[in-house]
Amino acid sequence: MKVTTPAIFLPKGFRFSAVAAGIKASGRRPDLALVEAAPGTSAAALFTRNRVVAAPVEIGRDFMRKSRGRVRAVIVNSGNANCATGHTGKRACQRICREVAQLLHIPTEEVFPSSTGIIGVPLPTENIVRTLPQLLASRKSTTRAMREFAEAITTTDTRLKVASEHIDSGAQQISLAGVAKGSGMIHPQLATMLVYLFTDAVASPVELRRLLRAVCDDTFNCISVDGDTSTNDTVLLLASGQSGASLKTFGIREKFQTALHRICQSLADQIVADGEGVRHVVQFEITQARNRDEALHIGRAIAHSLLVKTALAGSDPNWGRILAAIGACGVLVDPKRISISIGDELVCHRGACCDDNVQNAHQALSQPTCRVRVRLGRGSATVVFTTGDLTEEYVRVNATYST
Amino acid sequence: MKVTTPAIFLPKGFRFSAVAAGIKASGRRPDLALVEAAPGTSAAALFTRNRVVAAPVEIGRDFMRKSRGRVRAVIVNSGNANCATGHTGKRACQRICREVAQLLHIPTEEVFPSSTGIIGVPLPTENIVRTLPQLLASRKSTTRAMREFAEAITTTDTRLKVASEHIDSGAQQISLAGVAKGSGMIHPQLATMLVYLFTDAVASPVELRRLLRAVCDDTFNCISVDGDTSTNDTVLLLASGQSGASLKTFGIREKFQTALHRICQSLADQIVADGEGVRHVVQFEITQARNRDEALHIGRAIAHSLLVKTALAGSDPNWGRILAAIGACGVLVDPKRISISIGDELVCHRGACCDDNVQNAHQALSQPTCRVRVRLGRGSATVVFTTGDLTEEYVRVNATYST
Repeated sequence: MKVTTPAIFLPKGFRFSAVAAGIKASGRRPDLALVEAAPGTSAAALFTRNRVVAAPVEIGRDFMRKSRGRVRAVIVNSGNANCATGHTGKRACQRICREVAQLLHIPTEEVFPSSTGIIGVPLPTENIVRTLPQLLASRKSTTRAMREFAEAITTTDTRLKVASEHIDSGAQQISLAGVAKGSGMIHPQLATMLVYLFTDAVASPVELRRLLRAVCDDTFNCISVDGDTSTNDTVLLLASGQSGASLKTFGIREKFQTALHRICQSLADQIVADGEGVRHVVQFEITQARNRDEALHIGRAIAHSLLVKTALAGSDPNWGRILAAIGACGVLVDPKRISISIGDELVCHRGACCDDNVQNAHQALSQPTCRVRVRLGRGSATVVFTTGDLTEEYVRVNATYST
Repeated sequence: MKVTTPAIFLPKGFRFSAVAAGIKASGRRPDLALVEAAPGTSAAALFTRNRVVAAPVEIGRDFMRKSRGRVRAVIVNSGNANCATGHTGKRACQRICREVAQLLHIPTEEVFPSSTGIIGVPLPTENIVRTLPQLLASRKSTTRAMREFAEAITTTDTRLKVASEHIDSGAQQISLAGVAKGSGMIHPQLATMLVYLFTDAVASPVELRRLLRAVCDDTFNCISVDGDTSTNDTVLLLASGQSGASLKTFGIREKFQTALHRICQSLADQIVADGEGVRHVVQFEITQARNRDEALHIGRAIAHSLLVKTALAGSDPNWGRILAAIGACGVLVDPKRISISIGDELVCHRGACCDDNVQNAHQALSQPTCRVRVRLGRGSATVVFTTGDLTEEYVRVNATYST
């Protein structure tokens, strides 16, 4: 597991731990992880829009309602999605939450469950329950423990995904930190994969929810690795309040929202960069759309075109495929008003080829990250939609995932 | 080029030829092809629904309107789509049609043009015009000439795609034959790629159009290789009338429609089987949908899921990915009513795993063709949507297409 080491500002009020419970096929990699949050922690969560949802999503949503946005513990397993597992799967999830609650002496509905991994395979509940005491015994409030948590929730990921910010406003000091997992089945609709955001700010569940929704729309909802929306996508934001700094204080809310946005954008970018088989990340900047929905729809259509994604794999400035993807997406565009730039090179002017320098465009696409600008000539809305290339490695990773 | 040799019943009234005009990069493979149709031939055509359309699609649509469904010649080039080539591209297409018309002494608007290949590269018009006399000189009314036509219109195809039927109704004898090209950018919306259908039946353009639309909806509109809709998709049906057998005769129209359906289904299946990198063809039979549109929408969503398509590449019976794709497609399905069978093996019963024999399902998916049945428990509509697997070969073919 590659480890990037940005500075982590650890928010007060959280303890982390991780162990190997034998859920992943290898049997040795850590696959069960815990966060304990201080008393009084507020929470907001967003879940997948997939109609097929995993047991922990159903139960997590139910518990959040019952506890009115209070979370004291997060229990996550990787290696098994606990999805399409019927009543047995739901009972397994409830039992694990109950066991965690008893060990920590907290209400069951303040335990927030998550799972990620293969769909349709029964969860090895006994393994998990048996390992819980060991998991709880090792919980610590250190950046190292947080990294171990971040590693234990991964599946096909090759890198840890963490991001952190610090707000220094004189007497008011707030830390924010976020952890994500996700590499395949990435096409979030509202939330994405497993993302946990921690802060020691003072905030109500309602305030947190409003902020989280606005920020996720511009970050996790604007990325795609493979166009497949997961059954387990979850973003959870926890605020322990232990910094004493409240979002209600003048000027703090804006700084907090900016910091939260940066963390979510960073985690979203890290997810695409670590997408299965991804070697090139491309930011499609869709400009001059009628409105944001239209820009997003066109960004998605381009990012989901296999022909565009395979061209990116070859750093091939085949802009005709981008134009064809726009034309097929259902928006009544006028091709004669569409222009496309790859890096700084204008390759398509008003729907037709222009005197471009193919070598410059090829060069731009050969970089690890490249920006492609699409001007639609219809209005003034802009969205940046980020995706990766489709490589042979992606096919290798996914052709034999369950067998 | 692999050649399968089904019996071809050559309709009366058509002459074919093909030459190498130096449009394809190799410079040696045939890439310019012609059909001459007898005087009085009726025609109907369907075109791509992509908003970005190639010059020959614009001009072909215009000529069909002007000629009121009369076509005397079809001129096709491969190796260049003549799309996103601006006014120059349209003028090039018009000039080629005019030259063909002069050489054959027919009106320009009775020449039907098609192009297929790369988008955004100027058409080498002079090469084409210079080669036309040679192309016309070699036209013949033989099955061999028809096969040469079929070969010249291919690009990344590895097999010729032809299909033929004969209707014997005593005094009434009708032949039908069809030729198709297509391997990538296959997700037809109304029409698909280049398909030419020939018959010697007597039929008006209006009759042909009605039949063609009904048949294409169930055949070419129910396949996908990569989910990308081409800018050049065209299906053309020509009826020379030279058999003397009219579609107005009692009983003939039904037989004709059945034969046309079989030809189109065969060509559609051949296109998927020869899809870029495809090694496994899977027919998703979506049953118990509320209506046909819903079944088609779900069939498409499954067929376009990269995770489903890569699982097919590994013959991996990972039905959880099929369930996730259905859940994410926007239809308000109830997962608890969905069942999935792979071959004869029930793998998902009412939204959950069941005691399936994974080996049987794996075995079924290992065959060149497999049927996967999805029961939605919502109604009685059914659609069969056919797609292929996504292999490393697909990525290789498409990563460096234009460079």
